[in-house]
Amino acid sequence: MSARREAARQKPSGPIKVGLIGLGTIGTGVVKLLRRNQRTIDEKVGCGLRLVRIADLDLTRGRGLRLPAGLLVRDARRIVSDPEIDIVIELIGGLEPARSLVRAAIESGKSVVTANKAMLAVHGKELFHEAREFGVDIGFEASVAGGIPIIRVLREGLSADRNLSLYGIVNGTSNYILSRMQEEGREFGEVLAEAQKRGLAEADPSYDVDGVDAAHKLALLARLAFGAEVPLERVPAEGIRGLSQTDLSFAAELGYTVKLLAIAKNVGEEIEVRVHPTMIPKHHVIASVSGAYNAIYLQSEALGSSMYFGLGAGMMPTATAVVADVIEAARAIIKGCQGRVPALGFPNSKRLRIKPLGELRSEYYLRIMAMDRPGVLAEISSILGRNDISIATVLQKGRKIGGAVPVIIRTHEALERDLNRAVRAITGLKSVRGRIVRVRIEDNLG
Amino acid sequence: MSARREAARQKPSGPIKVGLIGLGTIGTGVVKLLRRNQRTIDEKVGCGLRLVRIADLDLTRGRGLRLPAGLLVRDARRIVSDPEIDIVIELIGGLEPARSLVRAAIESGKSVVTANKAMLAVHGKELFHEAREFGVDIGFEASVAGGIPIIRVLREGLSADRNLSLYGIVNGTSNYILSRMQEEGREFGEVLAEAQKRGLAEADPSYDVDGVDAAHKLALLARLAFGAEVPLERVPAEGIRGLSQTDLSFAAELGYTVKLLAIAKNVGEEIEVRVHPTMIPKHHVIASVSGAYNAIYLQSEALGSSMYFGLGAGMMPTATAVVADVIEAARAIIKGCQGRVPALGFPNSKRLRIKPLGELRSEYYLRIMAMDRPGVLAEISSILGRNDISIATVLQKGRKIGGAVPVIIRTHEALERDLNRAVRAITGLKSVRGRIVRVRIEDNLG
Repeated sequence: MSARREAARQKPSGPIKVGLIGLGTIGTGVVKLLRRNQRTIDEKVGCGLRLVRIADLDLTRGRGLRLPAGLLVRDARRIVSDPEIDIVIELIGGLEPARSLVRAAIESGKSVVTANKAMLAVHGKELFHEAREFGVDIGFEASVAGGIPIIRVLREGLSADRNLSLYGIVNGTSNYILSRMQEEGREFGEVLAEAQKRGLAEADPSYDVDGVDAAHKLALLARLAFGAEVPLERVPAEGIRGLSQTDLSFAAELGYTVKLLAIAKNVGEEIEVRVHPTMIPKHHVIASVSGAYNAIYLQSEALGSSMYFGLGAGMMPTATAVVADVIEAARAIIKGCQGRVPALGFPNSKRLRIKPLGELRSEYYLRIMAMDRPGVLAEISSILGRNDISIATVLQKGRKIGGAVPVIIRTHEALERDLNRAVRAITGLKSVRGRIVRVRIEDNLG
Repeated sequence: MSARREAARQKPSGPIKVGLIGLGTIGTGVVKLLRRNQRTIDEKVGCGLRLVRIADLDLTRGRGLRLPAGLLVRDARRIVSDPEIDIVIELIGGLEPARSLVRAAIESGKSVVTANKAMLAVHGKELFHEAREFGVDIGFEASVAGGIPIIRVLREGLSADRNLSLYGIVNGTSNYILSRMQEEGREFGEVLAEAQKRGLAEADPSYDVDGVDAAHKLALLARLAFGAEVPLERVPAEGIRGLSQTDLSFAAELGYTVKLLAIAKNVGEEIEVRVHPTMIPKHHVIASVSGAYNAIYLQSEALGSSMYFGLGAGMMPTATAVVADVIEAARAIIKGCQGRVPALGFPNSKRLRIKPLGELRSEYYLRIMAMDRPGVLAEISSILGRNDISIATVLQKGRKIGGAVPVIIRTHEALERDLNRAVRAITGLKSVRGRIVRVRIEDNLG
């Protein structure tokens, strides 16, 4: 292994040679960007950078690119096994064959750049270890928050500080839908359908609107922010499907904006990770992040608050992150300093306890649809009281929806476990109809 | 020189040794941060990091630090000439002796970390060249926007893209004063006096409130963003003293917030740089940056909009940037890859024409204090018309101030040179009193 490691460290003569696997949307953006800024990129790298081969299963589709004959091949093995190639860009996504190709590239001494957060969520540990063993780099800036250089920021920009909490708007589709609902007073289903028509949401939108994508990103962000292991299956995720126009307008009335937030906090030896719709003060800087934009808002011990804002998806924004990683990998090859920074910023990850969601202490917004008859509020209040939940505000506006009226309750800080018990009991009341909507409130983002 | 260069590249055995020159506010923060996070920093650097000497002219002042005997010395030469020291942190500010000390450190093969933007504005070119010659690094993240890692973002995060424009709120004092004026309806003088009492503004506030500090930062940011030479003396700067409560409330009525912006744009072979109060749409994300916070809002060709937000000054925020640079310099020494990235991101700076302010095309807000008599508006309009300036909105509210009423005009896009001519002519009208307030409007930040 050590001999191979040494082999990997030999500096190339002439330009750095790059192979690209996967010529889909992002891949096409990467080719365009490399061409458009070739002169500047060559200058920055010092000895030039050449895209020498592209592999994709589809050799015929037009992509608005004119590719020289022979550049595009079908077999990705022709990239990972080519001794001429220094850096491999992996943009096919998914677990396999992505992982095997990345492993093969690393084992041939090539640095890798990827946007594949699913692969990193599942196989990251193994691949980062492998890269370290073989003395190569893995760049993955594009895997989280697209064009926002949040991985560099966490890994190097804030390397001297200790992060306390992270609030991310990291799913552009959900943020777009929520923003439209709030700005235009429309319902979820309607805005989703329109977003699908406009190509801003997938035909099956669950990955985005149910918080799954945000949970993937949060697992990676929390590792980078706190240097702790965060297994994906320990990140509870709740999406935005359950929210209606009624909730958004009551939120506004209470002084809040609703965002799908990916939240991670480090308190002592514990960390807290969760994805869910959250009410945040409407004048807070992260509340002004609307449309398809992403943002990561951090609290750090010495720095205090900071925020990083930009487009988290899309062909060209994501391509900028991929190519920035290629430039960094190329500089490392030229200088012989692969592995300069640990992949996740910390050389070893801490084992911190992940606090179960039931132990969360939060304020809550509750919308209970109840029959408009005397004594209902008394029943509800008494259940909340028995569960140690005290009420901060009650709004009852008599907007009748199917015979029932919304009772809006804003609680003081309560334990999630207690709240769940209370919600179950209230749901069972005779005068209560349907599902109770529950949104966590974050008043102190800092 | 080449022998010395080689000497500089030898990797140290044992921990990296750091010397600190200047134990003022930021220096004290640096010592605190290095101590507080020592274990993590040692792990990140790999072979440990030790602060082995501090130089300051004042050996007696208590700084809330307990320093081991002999650590603090008076003579900074004992740091720059000590062959044991690998990295020198320069925090004394000003031009001399800072520059001579930094040169001496570089020439002894030491990497340098500095927060001294005045020194870099004047001697940056020489010092960066010198560092390259001697194979060492100069880290200067702390010199612009304090704890916001904007230099890393511009130099590496966005290295694949082409930046088009930059809008910075980079002076915390001015932003604090404007925010308080807008939120509380108070006047400049009153808020300034209070900020001075609270230690948020200097006794002589001109460096901050007259845009000088912002111009220094803009010169550096524009170089990093566009790779072009931007001599400090070519950056026109106008501060916030001329703004009154009247202007802020009219701005709000027109849908704007007023911010002191540092603006740089690259259009073709020209760049535009300027610092001045600017009206921006009040729902724009950068309009929500209030209090002492800083933010840099960028438009880039492929990425689109992005923004970087945080505290631009203060002991601990600035210290985080200094120590992050120290960690990066230490990693480079260990890996032997000093000079991995050109100091300003681009190896060579382009020579772009700097567009004179007179050639600016902008929309303008004008406040003209005029006697409330018939025909005044006609006179004003006719002067504007003769100078090719067309009016978008006129507000006349009859709020009498010293016998005159404010006439508020929002123009369509006009040439600055034409506007200046018109303003001079209007000022000369018999029925016009005092100075005309003129604020540029930026409607399309993207």
